Amino acid sequence: MANQNRSSGKKTNDRSNSKKRYFSYQKTNKNKRSAQPQKRSEQKDSLKIAFLGGMNEIGKNMTLYEYRHDMFIVDCGLAFPSSDLLGVDLVIPDFSYVEANADRIRGIVVTHGHEDHIGGIAYLLKKINVPIYATKLTIGLIKGKLEEHGLLKSARLIEVKSKDNITLGAFNVELIHVNHSIPDAVGLAIKTPAGVVIQTGDFKIDTTPVDGDMIDLARFSEYGRKGVLALLSDSTNAERPGLAASEKNVGDSFVNLFNKAGKKRIVVATFASNIHRVQQIIDVAQLLDRKVAVTGRSLENLVTVGQELGYLNVPSGVLIDITEIKKYNDDELVIITTGSQGEPMSALTKIAFGEHKKVSFTPNDFVIISATPIPGNEKMVSNVVNELMKHGVEVIYEKMYDVHVSGHACQEELKLMLGIVKPKFFIPVHGEQKHLQKHASLGAAMGIPKKNIYIGNIGDRIDISSNGIKNLKSVTAGEVYVDGFGVGDVGNVVLKDRKHLSQDGIIIIAATIDSVTGKTISGPDIVSRGFVFVKENEALMKSAKELSAKIIENGYNSEKFKDWNSIKTKLRDEISYLMYEKTKRKPMVVPILMEI
Amino acid sequence: MANQNRSSGKKTNDRSNSKKRYFSYQKTNKNKRSAQPQKRSEQKDSLKIAFLGGMNEIGKNMTLYEYRHDMFIVDCGLAFPSSDLLGVDLVIPDFSYVEANADRIRGIVVTHGHEDHIGGIAYLLKKINVPIYATKLTIGLIKGKLEEHGLLKSARLIEVKSKDNITLGAFNVELIHVNHSIPDAVGLAIKTPAGVVIQTGDFKIDTTPVDGDMIDLARFSEYGRKGVLALLSDSTNAERPGLAASEKNVGDSFVNLFNKAGKKRIVVATFASNIHRVQQIIDVAQLLDRKVAVTGRSLENLVTVGQELGYLNVPSGVLIDITEIKKYNDDELVIITTGSQGEPMSALTKIAFGEHKKVSFTPNDFVIISATPIPGNEKMVSNVVNELMKHGVEVIYEKMYDVHVSGHACQEELKLMLGIVKPKFFIPVHGEQKHLQKHASLGAAMGIPKKNIYIGNIGDRIDISSNGIKNLKSVTAGEVYVDGFGVGDVGNVVLKDRKHLSQDGIIIIAATIDSVTGKTISGPDIVSRGFVFVKENEALMKSAKELSAKIIENGYNSEKFKDWNSIKTKLRDEISYLMYEKTKRKPMVVPILMEI
Repeated sequence: MANQNRSSGKKTNDRSNSKKRYFSYQKTNKNKRSAQPQKRSEQKDSLKIAFLGGMNEIGKNMTLYEYRHDMFIVDCGLAFPSSDLLGVDLVIPDFSYVEANADRIRGIVVTHGHEDHIGGIAYLLKKINVPIYATKLTIGLIKGKLEEHGLLKSARLIEVKSKDNITLGAFNVELIHVNHSIPDAVGLAIKTPAGVVIQTGDFKIDTTPVDGDMIDLARFSEYGRKGVLALLSDSTNAERPGLAASEKNVGDSFVNLFNKAGKKRIVVATFASNIHRVQQIIDVAQLLDRKVAVTGRSLENLVTVGQELGYLNVPSGVLIDITEIKKYNDDELVIITTGSQGEPMSALTKIAFGEHKKVSFTPNDFVIISATPIPGNEKMVSNVVNELMKHGVEVIYEKMYDVHVSGHACQEELKLMLGIVKPKFFIPVHGEQKHLQKHASLGAAMGIPKKNIYIGNIGDRIDISSNGIKNLKSVTAGEVYVDGFGVGDVGNVVLKDRKHLSQDGIIIIAATIDSVTGKTISGPDIVSRGFVFVKENEALMKSAKELSAKIIENGYNSEKFKDWNSIKTKLRDEISYLMYEKTKRKPMVVPILMEI
Repeated sequence: MANQNRSSGKKTNDRSNSKKRYFSYQKTNKNKRSAQPQKRSEQKDSLKIAFLGGMNEIGKNMTLYEYRHDMFIVDCGLAFPSSDLLGVDLVIPDFSYVEANADRIRGIVVTHGHEDHIGGIAYLLKKINVPIYATKLTIGLIKGKLEEHGLLKSARLIEVKSKDNITLGAFNVELIHVNHSIPDAVGLAIKTPAGVVIQTGDFKIDTTPVDGDMIDLARFSEYGRKGVLALLSDSTNAERPGLAASEKNVGDSFVNLFNKAGKKRIVVATFASNIHRVQQIIDVAQLLDRKVAVTGRSLENLVTVGQELGYLNVPSGVLIDITEIKKYNDDELVIITTGSQGEPMSALTKIAFGEHKKVSFTPNDFVIISATPIPGNEKMVSNVVNELMKHGVEVIYEKMYDVHVSGHACQEELKLMLGIVKPKFFIPVHGEQKHLQKHASLGAAMGIPKKNIYIGNIGDRIDISSNGIKNLKSVTAGEVYVDGFGVGDVGNVVLKDRKHLSQDGIIIIAATIDSVTGKTISGPDIVSRGFVFVKENEALMKSAKELSAKIIENGYNSEKFKDWNSIKTKLRDEISYLMYEKTKRKPMVVPILMEI
């Protein structure tokens, strides 16, 4: 098929197509260098994997599997913009490669309901409408997203559960239950004629999970026993030694801390999506005869969805509306709030800075920040902690209190996963370069030959068979910026301008000129924003005005300069120079010349 | 004197002036509530302390002591701008209170040569030229600053050493040697007729310092034995349990790591001011027969100043110029570089991203980042680490390798200081609210009554005597932004505009109007920057132009709107609304109407 040829990349030296066989660890190893003719029926095409996100970055996870004419996608997440992406709301993967192969995509399988795994789905569905397979809670959270985008009616959502098998063309995908900081998370066993690939999704090993449902290590082991071609495993915590503590530990800490709070009102800030955390807060509150109120939009949604779908068990009478807190004494209340990362618009930040409409802090508050700052958020969290403490609020925010555990496997868990899956090839995913490399070194320490470990980049497309991993021609992949309604319309030029404007502001020079006489009829007017406080810098503005007038006049009277662009360039250069000389700043200079 | 009355604050209920006595721990305690008449000769004025920086913040440390007509200043530092201070280069304290009392300032005593203790001096000297007292290295570093500002000739720099006493009017200040991450750091014993105040400056207790000179605990203890009115102590690490490790540990790690590097070229990034760290790198390099080259302006300065003043001992032949590295094999080289915080313009970042003119990395490099990211810098450091690792460079950046120790006392050291100084009053300084409170709780645990612990804020001015601490009327204090040559000319309006511009850019609407007929002669022209990529949004720009034309035309033809401001307001409102409707963004809208 023409389509197939195109997408498998003509220019890549892909000679493996006629040699691939259904994966069998021993057999393939033996046949590795044999050139024996094989029976036609045994000849198989190879498996290809394209990394469209989550490689060499944290966030916007998206992996595409290809076998012959069939493709399917694992996850479609978003990333939050780094601080240099001024004004950008969120970042999604580049879908070019998916769009070019729209007719080959058999579906999307989603591992769990976190933003970095579901946040891009609505944008993708606007390009291609393919079926989405996910577990109940994940579907519930995706539905919320699709509703915001008006896509709920047209979307094809298929609810599945762990142990289910999904057939997607040549692929058969089994969902395997894993532990994570959100319920209903799954890893995937992707069965293809070329072999089995295990993709863990985000996972940890929690032997005492809040819902009692431990990660299905037996199923991962079974696949490991039968032979696994490749393991794609979560690298987020590859730098951390030991094991991630159990979510249950946090519950135990809550009991201690809630008791320590005594007669105070308790406020707990946590990630909106952590249903088990919320469940534990509710449980301890009930135990101590406190009512629970919730504030923060995403958390309110979660409590609604969580209850509807049966993931959150709230005994009747425990939950009260946030508007009702006035009716209770401080020691009868627990308030659960968003803002554990110190986000400026979150409920906790608003409470701390006295801007929350329904909750005011008092020195009789006992605030628990049940989270660890994500790198980059440390200062924002500190600001909120400091602000609360200044007003006498007791704040529990330190690691020593065990008020948070990670949802991602640490080194010993990652090694355990490697040890039971026993993959021939190991591909660390979900991490920056340092995480991928650290994870790779764990794999090497477990005995996987270095040549069988693949550290990739987004846009990489590989051909994988028992013979080895081959790099194919890379595909279009990268960051697409979402800003308001705009998807991809903010690019480097706009960002560079925003950066420039943010540093030193703008100076606008406006003048109206008689095109016949060359006389300036009106202006030049100098307008500035974000540069200096004009009232205190009148002399500077006056010299800018005089210099502009001279440049415009000379320009229109000189043969050499008598075109708009030359005069504008001269204005930009000379006014920039003047400003730098006088202020050591470099505002953006925008000349607007109007001719009559 | 009028001046004195004014500055001691008429409105403050300061009734203590006639009651203060020379501090004696026992005596004062007994006399606490006595109203006995005292002999005139024994009557003393009270000591006052104004906190001009470093309270409730990290950085720009500045404390002012007052006794009768005399005042002196301890430290005058800068702070680095938080990320919301767009375009601001650095932040210095507000000097209003100092300026208002210029004739009373007897001098500045500087505890050590870090930016957060010396970085404001040049700006202060432009307001008042008072003598500066500091140790040799600190003077050397201050000189560098003053030279940049053309102030070296006029400044009065007085070199002192630990154990020296400085008389500043009614004050006598003894310098006490302390350990810190820069040599020649001192704490202060401030002797006043009202009692002795100990201000530690930044310190740690290093029993095996690189220069062999341990903190002078004996001297602190002696003051403690005689009786100390108040202790002002460094709170930076008050959250960290235990003790800060010795700088020597880093040297031991270097030996191990340099050996581990084998035949590779070694690159070590560290803080430019950490002379002991640099000394240890040079020592280990010499031991292993490697040459040392230095890159990064501040580090080059430090090596020059450090050698000149005898703080850095470089055996001849070890140091080579960075341009000479080509002459040596990789295993004959150590390069020391700036950029341990991932600063975008630093030498290491330039090396990592291939932008350094004299150093290119190779996969045969072994990079050690000998620092811990300061909160807020984690992402920048990660970017540099990831970039290097992508190209196969081995990077040592983790805590587990002991490549960095803190220069600030941790909890056990802070308690030890409290235990030997035995102050009546305890004032934690140098820290955010959370650090101050944690430090205060250490003091309370040591038996200091809560009412004798003072947690202050910048601008607080207190009256302190054995009777207690009283809050006086607060003085002007805060943040002054330095942006280019401008000191204080960037304020909230400018910053708000920069923030707005940075998020959604700007739209300028320019038109020329005949003031008689009300006809638009030229325009309206729509110019945008940092908003959308105009070529792809021609329709949007066209509707903005049409709407603007209509508003201007209606405005000039309507009685109601026939003034510029109304038309401008209407343009701003309606174009903003249009843009938000179409793009969900809110660019700044600037109308420029020119009348003829």
